[in-house]
Amino acid sequence: MSEKLWGGRFSKTTDEMINEFQASIGFDRRMYREDIAGSLAHAAMLAKVGILSEKDHAAIEKGLKDILAQIEHEDFDFSVALEDIHMNIEKCLTDAIGDAGSRLHTARSRNDQVALDTHLFVRHAVVDVMAHIRALQQALTESAAQHRDVIMPGYTHLQRAQPILFSHHLMAYFGMLARDFERFQGVYARTDIMPLGAGALAGTTLPIDRQFVAQRLHFERIYTNSLDAVSDRDYILEFLSAASILMVHLSRLSEEIILWCSREFSFVELDDAHCTGSSMMPQKKNPDVSELVRGKTGRVVGHLMAMLMAVKGLPLAYNKDLQEDKEGLFDAIDTVKFSLAVYAQLIRGMKLREDVMRHAVEADYSNATDLADYLVRKGLPFRKAHAAAGQAVAQCIARGIYLADLPIADYQQLSPLFAEDIYDAIRPETCVACRNSYGGTSYEQAEMQLEAAKNLMMEEKHIISVLTEKQNILS
Amino acid sequence: MSEKLWGGRFSKTTDEMINEFQASIGFDRRMYREDIAGSLAHAAMLAKVGILSEKDHAAIEKGLKDILAQIEHEDFDFSVALEDIHMNIEKCLTDAIGDAGSRLHTARSRNDQVALDTHLFVRHAVVDVMAHIRALQQALTESAAQHRDVIMPGYTHLQRAQPILFSHHLMAYFGMLARDFERFQGVYARTDIMPLGAGALAGTTLPIDRQFVAQRLHFERIYTNSLDAVSDRDYILEFLSAASILMVHLSRLSEEIILWCSREFSFVELDDAHCTGSSMMPQKKNPDVSELVRGKTGRVVGHLMAMLMAVKGLPLAYNKDLQEDKEGLFDAIDTVKFSLAVYAQLIRGMKLREDVMRHAVEADYSNATDLADYLVRKGLPFRKAHAAAGQAVAQCIARGIYLADLPIADYQQLSPLFAEDIYDAIRPETCVACRNSYGGTSYEQAEMQLEAAKNLMMEEKHIISVLTEKQNILS
Amino acid sequence: MSEKLWGGRFSKTTDEMINEFQASIGFDRRMYREDIAGSLAHAAMLAKVGILSEKDHAAIEKGLKDILAQIEHEDFDFSVALEDIHMNIEKCLTDAIGDAGSRLHTARSRNDQVALDTHLFVRHAVVDVMAHIRALQQALTESAAQHRDVIMPGYTHLQRAQPILFSHHLMAYFGMLARDFERFQGVYARTDIMPLGAGALAGTTLPIDRQFVAQRLHFERIYTNSLDAVSDRDYILEFLSAASILMVHLSRLSEEIILWCSREFSFVELDDAHCTGSSMMPQKKNPDVSELVRGKTGRVVGHLMAMLMAVKGLPLAYNKDLQEDKEGLFDAIDTVKFSLAVYAQLIRGMKLREDVMRHAVEADYSNATDLADYLVRKGLPFRKAHAAAGQAVAQCIARGIYLADLPIADYQQLSPLFAEDIYDAIRPETCVACRNSYGGTSYEQAEMQLEAAKNLMMEEKHIISVLTEKQNILS
Amino acid sequence: MSEKLWGGRFSKTTDEMINEFQASIGFDRRMYREDIAGSLAHAAMLAKVGILSEKDHAAIEKGLKDILAQIEHEDFDFSVALEDIHMNIEKCLTDAIGDAGSRLHTARSRNDQVALDTHLFVRHAVVDVMAHIRALQQALTESAAQHRDVIMPGYTHLQRAQPILFSHHLMAYFGMLARDFERFQGVYARTDIMPLGAGALAGTTLPIDRQFVAQRLHFERIYTNSLDAVSDRDYILEFLSAASILMVHLSRLSEEIILWCSREFSFVELDDAHCTGSSMMPQKKNPDVSELVRGKTGRVVGHLMAMLMAVKGLPLAYNKDLQEDKEGLFDAIDTVKFSLAVYAQLIRGMKLREDVMRHAVEADYSNATDLADYLVRKGLPFRKAHAAAGQAVAQCIARGIYLADLPIADYQQLSPLFAEDIYDAIRPETCVACRNSYGGTSYEQAEMQLEAAKNLMMEEKHIISVLTEKQNILS
Repeated sequence: MSEKLWGGRFSKTTDEMINEFQASIGFDRRMYREDIAGSLAHAAMLAKVGILSEKDHAAIEKGLKDILAQIEHEDFDFSVALEDIHMNIEKCLTDAIGDAGSRLHTARSRNDQVALDTHLFVRHAVVDVMAHIRALQQALTESAAQHRDVIMPGYTHLQRAQPILFSHHLMAYFGMLARDFERFQGVYARTDIMPLGAGALAGTTLPIDRQFVAQRLHFERIYTNSLDAVSDRDYILEFLSAASILMVHLSRLSEEIILWCSREFSFVELDDAHCTGSSMMPQKKNPDVSELVRGKTGRVVGHLMAMLMAVKGLPLAYNKDLQEDKEGLFDAIDTVKFSLAVYAQLIRGMKLREDVMRHAVEADYSNATDLADYLVRKGLPFRKAHAAAGQAVAQCIARGIYLADLPIADYQQLSPLFAEDIYDAIRPETCVACRNSYGGTSYEQAEMQLEAAKNLMMEEKHIISVLTEKQNILS
Repeated sequence: MSEKLWGGRFSKTTDEMINEFQASIGFDRRMYREDIAGSLAHAAMLAKVGILSEKDHAAIEKGLKDILAQIEHEDFDFSVALEDIHMNIEKCLTDAIGDAGSRLHTARSRNDQVALDTHLFVRHAVVDVMAHIRALQQALTESAAQHRDVIMPGYTHLQRAQPILFSHHLMAYFGMLARDFERFQGVYARTDIMPLGAGALAGTTLPIDRQFVAQRLHFERIYTNSLDAVSDRDYILEFLSAASILMVHLSRLSEEIILWCSREFSFVELDDAHCTGSSMMPQKKNPDVSELVRGKTGRVVGHLMAMLMAVKGLPLAYNKDLQEDKEGLFDAIDTVKFSLAVYAQLIRGMKLREDVMRHAVEADYSNATDLADYLVRKGLPFRKAHAAAGQAVAQCIARGIYLADLPIADYQQLSPLFAEDIYDAIRPETCVACRNSYGGTSYEQAEMQLEAAKNLMMEEKHIISVLTEKQNILS
Repeated sequence: MSEKLWGGRFSKTTDEMINEFQASIGFDRRMYREDIAGSLAHAAMLAKVGILSEKDHAAIEKGLKDILAQIEHEDFDFSVALEDIHMNIEKCLTDAIGDAGSRLHTARSRNDQVALDTHLFVRHAVVDVMAHIRALQQALTESAAQHRDVIMPGYTHLQRAQPILFSHHLMAYFGMLARDFERFQGVYARTDIMPLGAGALAGTTLPIDRQFVAQRLHFERIYTNSLDAVSDRDYILEFLSAASILMVHLSRLSEEIILWCSREFSFVELDDAHCTGSSMMPQKKNPDVSELVRGKTGRVVGHLMAMLMAVKGLPLAYNKDLQEDKEGLFDAIDTVKFSLAVYAQLIRGMKLREDVMRHAVEADYSNATDLADYLVRKGLPFRKAHAAAGQAVAQCIARGIYLADLPIADYQQLSPLFAEDIYDAIRPETCVACRNSYGGTSYEQAEMQLEAAKNLMMEEKHIISVLTEKQNILS
Repeated sequence: MSEKLWGGRFSKTTDEMINEFQASIGFDRRMYREDIAGSLAHAAMLAKVGILSEKDHAAIEKGLKDILAQIEHEDFDFSVALEDIHMNIEKCLTDAIGDAGSRLHTARSRNDQVALDTHLFVRHAVVDVMAHIRALQQALTESAAQHRDVIMPGYTHLQRAQPILFSHHLMAYFGMLARDFERFQGVYARTDIMPLGAGALAGTTLPIDRQFVAQRLHFERIYTNSLDAVSDRDYILEFLSAASILMVHLSRLSEEIILWCSREFSFVELDDAHCTGSSMMPQKKNPDVSELVRGKTGRVVGHLMAMLMAVKGLPLAYNKDLQEDKEGLFDAIDTVKFSLAVYAQLIRGMKLREDVMRHAVEADYSNATDLADYLVRKGLPFRKAHAAAGQAVAQCIARGIYLADLPIADYQQLSPLFAEDIYDAIRPETCVACRNSYGGTSYEQAEMQLEAAKNLMMEEKHIISVLTEKQNILS
């Protein structure tokens, strides 16, 4: 006889290849905690509204907790023939406690259960990701605070543009991560909607109490439409979108660190722990971690693409295509968490080569804007000041010198507004200190940014702690 | 002499092909209102802090307003050689008012300006999209209200599963759109951050007042890091993500309408205005609009992929790759707005073929769950009830009849719990009415959903109106 | 002391998390046969040119074959600390045979090896995929031959358009698969290029003989540029592209089978083995396999996207990002092979409901084109004939009848060209038989298509057998 | 009365918004040459088989050629209400020559025509792209030949690895482009299949001669299945795939050129024509063209994703979703051709800073492998030689010197195998010259590569010329 619980009307058993093709137990077993927590809440509700006797409820509760213990002690045999985590647990329960076990599935469907488990799982993952985002922000802030005075070239088009504070550069990533954090809060809000009680698609005829289940599992909202409840995968798409944007941020940071580690830049040295060597070239110290994170960006975006494509054009309500929602999601969760975690470490272990950075800002023309600004301050229209600065640079390039080396006489030929104070005006420290507009690279603004960052991280900490509390669904 | 404003140090002019390759005026001219509004605000600020004389300010203001009028009267010659909308306007301004015009660019850079204009443009587009979402929700709600009693088959795996209310089906899309609306609120919040004042990348040495500009342009927040300000494209990525998810929703609705229009389903008839015929087959009435929307889903997702890929691995701050941010974005905005607008029309013009739908729910086994639920209510464990229902269906299929036709004697052989009231229990109306759990398909729940929908749309209306007010940046 | 073979200059050991993040042994162990075959060929070459003594060569050969046996008997401990399959095998070899083992790596690098193994692996996978494509073509041809006379509605816009032969419909997929086969031949040709001998990036100072290795491993071509050899991932991108297009074909077939299985179409019944039931609705027979294949299309396209994104913007030569090339590739290979295999089964097990299909072509207006063609044959310009046919359909719809039921008098009012033979002209059999243009749906063309298909499959068989021979690299 | 040619059965006219949403004339007008060539061939065939009188044929031919002339003289009014290029031309023809014009559409459908035009268009575009690929190969080869002796650092992980010839580096891209060329040959072969004669989907009842049309339009093959003919978009997907891979190659080259233009690398200087300046920083010379090409990679990949997604899950045969096939395709064609063209120019205008490159290879440890190879040649097992080289590098780094500076005594402490000839062995010229394995970076290999490149380009030239001939379809 068929081991399949829905096997009633079928005369043939599914053959093995098909079984393997269809089974999700290989990956959805990861949601065992969520599945058991969901079943405990469902059973409690059934008992509360009188569908389940207290005795049956007690048996189910004990049975489920035993199964939880078995799984956590790696003492549970997952069966491919039972297809998924839901069937595996239910079969085990029924084997253990008999009829009472088969009453657990009253007033819910597998689609229901899949939806509930995945919501719980993603909700938890979102909080984890938020905590990891904050940890990386922390590392960035510490490094920024530690290197308050370090000046480096700022780039546009990978051309040196203007001198900036290293900490200012680092804090740009803090800003990106702060938006990532916000985005994941949005993901949380739209994951935190309880689907259970949708039945197969249309609700149930039994007098269930969805509010009770929602409360027990700490859901803020409940799906108000049962069809939507079982076929919604928005929260997964939105998770993958937010994760993709986050990975794009890390890929940019990676690109920069890879550049900075190159012989040509030599701005930083990574900790040995975050590099590997070469089997062929012993002098190499490869920024593998950064390269991997940059490469893994594609992976997460690929999962987003996969899921958008899988859902595209599906009629309501549940279709088996939706089973494809988990593997990419799980991999994206792992990738994002891992990438954030290694980066928090990497930033902490990264040593600056301040001398090299310093030399870099002295040996280029990135103070040309300050030359122009000097003239503007003396009353020249911007476009004319810009043209004069351009000519000064062109002269220097032709003579193989820098702006600091151009004699005052030459300056004055370009514009009579130049005076001796021009040399101070184009020193890197002056250039940096002067850009004191709100959000600029000056020392003062840097302090303000760090202060604001601390405050924001305090808020984030509070948010994470409130949400973490809510993930406690098994006590 | 080179027409390029930055041409100072170059000895050769850019040749024409390269010019065309690089120029963005072909598409960024669309942001002329934003560019002028931004310049007006910048000029007012420069005047306020004393960088610009009142006379110059007045000249600039008049000059810009003249240009606005010229463009709106299609009386402005856009030049490819001037590359972009910013240069085109600035050059025109300088030609018109002389030196004062060249002072406008004091304390800002083109990267700055690009960022500001795009933020303003996207912010406005988000509000438009939100209004269009709401309009489609309105159409869905009206249609749902209008067809309160229509029953149709509910599907899973495109197999008939259980009878549901047509309005319940439609309102599932209302739910999706409600989340879309929320998502775009998030996009708004993270677009509504003012970049101006970042200079080329590091801020400016001049005593600008970014708060003043932000207020004038109704920005809620200001970028606190100048590097982030000029290189951030998150808001575009997030817009495209939200748009992609929205299009996936519309693609699902499209798939369903295409199915419903097929001869085999025949559930609905579209208005002639939303169909086309065939040059070869005169009897055809093709649901082109739905097919196009389904097809255009790929387009919007493609733009998202394009942008994620463009930003991936870019070092800070501005890189020319970022110029690729606009065409796909603009096309996505148009596509989303257009798709929502035609759908609001299409839903309103769609006629139900209630007789066909009614016949459909009578001529299948989608009441089998109700058979099982009947036994559960009489005390049978769910899995056993399910097996009995399965056998009843199998018998009916073998005999070519439906569940309503199976004699009571046969029922009682399957289970002694069956009685005459089984026939009422499996009528479509009963099946629908019974699924009265919160969010279920019952008549009562449908009313509640409609009520909740009205309240939500009221809130949305308020939000849209507040945000619309803020887009008024040119008065 | 560090277990890492390249650990010479490092003072710290890589910590565990980073280890896990970087290690590829979890997935690249799958290439153990390729790695060993490559090493055997490399060793033989080193011996041939005199770099390796015969004694060392013999020891290496024996050692590698022992390791092969161990792995195949699942008697090999893979170590994460040794990072990848190459290091795992080399370490084991050196442990077993001492110094000779460490001489194996002479004149090659890990990048070299990775490239070689992956080329061999993909090349083999391509041949497998080609064989699976042909097997599905075989199944389609058999089903087409078996149902030679079955007529069904042909669709455009999912609207019934013209009657066609079922076999004609099926053979459209044969054509798509024939192009897929061709495309994979192209992938083969561009995978069949030997990279070994590129060293880390620049070739080697030792007098190696790349032709010898290429011959032994049956490579048709050799990379002529060492930098290209280690950084090329085109063959993976091209495999994923071809796989994506193939999956799009299967997704279309899946969509159709899902439609055909619906109650509304009821054109086919799948074998129980390829369906599952519902835990809630016992009457359901869900076309899960087709839904899964349709869903998995996104997965393969996602892997393509991931890889394009990973390679985008990478400087030459090897970068660690490229390690991301394998997991998605392996998954795509499995998915494609699995999908083709289950489809060959599914098509064979699919039963047609010929009565339903027959009824479908009688109860619609899909013979309207034939009405128009009839008038064209009698001399009316096409556009006028089309208009007349359109009016006839409109009349019928208004009266609730079909074209076969419209009295001759009414026809003649529309055009005097109509005569009694019109009724024969619009019978489904006539409609089908008449479309006898090359590639049309007529019975005669169907036979010709089947004949051509047989010939093509004969050619394909030959190609597969020649290529299969070449995959024999371990004897 | 409705202006729509298929408007027979409709009572309402399509409203304007829908019109605009559906119309393709905005972009498909670009295929006017293909449309007219296709119609000329179709008309000639109709005349040949006797469906069209000679008189009508002559009128049609003249009419179409007049229209061609009108369009080419920009003297043709395209109408949105007429939806597409096919209808626009047909309507104009019928207006001009009356009834004969309406006979042109005999035995073909719009789907047919769309398919034919697009095949012709893509086929032509493929040849153009191939010619552009070859032109860039030419530029690369010239630059390589011109800088035969220039040595630069070769990189892995963006770490200097081993000295290589600049020409060797450049020729790696030649190899990638050679595969691109091959891939586009494959695209050509699978585009070069004639669809016309498929009718709406099932062929036609008229005795058409598809071979005749194919010959006239120089098609190699004909679709053997009419359903496949009208619904196949493989050739577009394959074009976009090949284009995506090509753009990924250009993105890698772009990344490198951007790096080389940076102050830190300073390996090359681009021609002013391929750069732009900054409005704020007069010293900047931004490699905009390279940045744009890198950015546009996403755009082409986005179009591929869009199209894969649009076709996914579509039932046979034509669906309106397929209209989405053109805009992305056209944009991809333009982008690819433009990018190749500007790169051929850019490479020719790029000046090497040989002194900087030379200095780079002297001031690093990229000759460490040669140190190890030296020991291997003296008999040390590779892994031991590698370890010794690693220690030498570590010592040098600690002392702030390079390998050339380490006294022989220190070398001999690391291994007694070291002798005075070590200093010659690690000179950059020696390092390069020694890597003389096939495909290596040696001077000798470089000559061989250039020779092989010339031969390949000769073959390519021949292929392009043969294919170009075939695009001549309007004479």
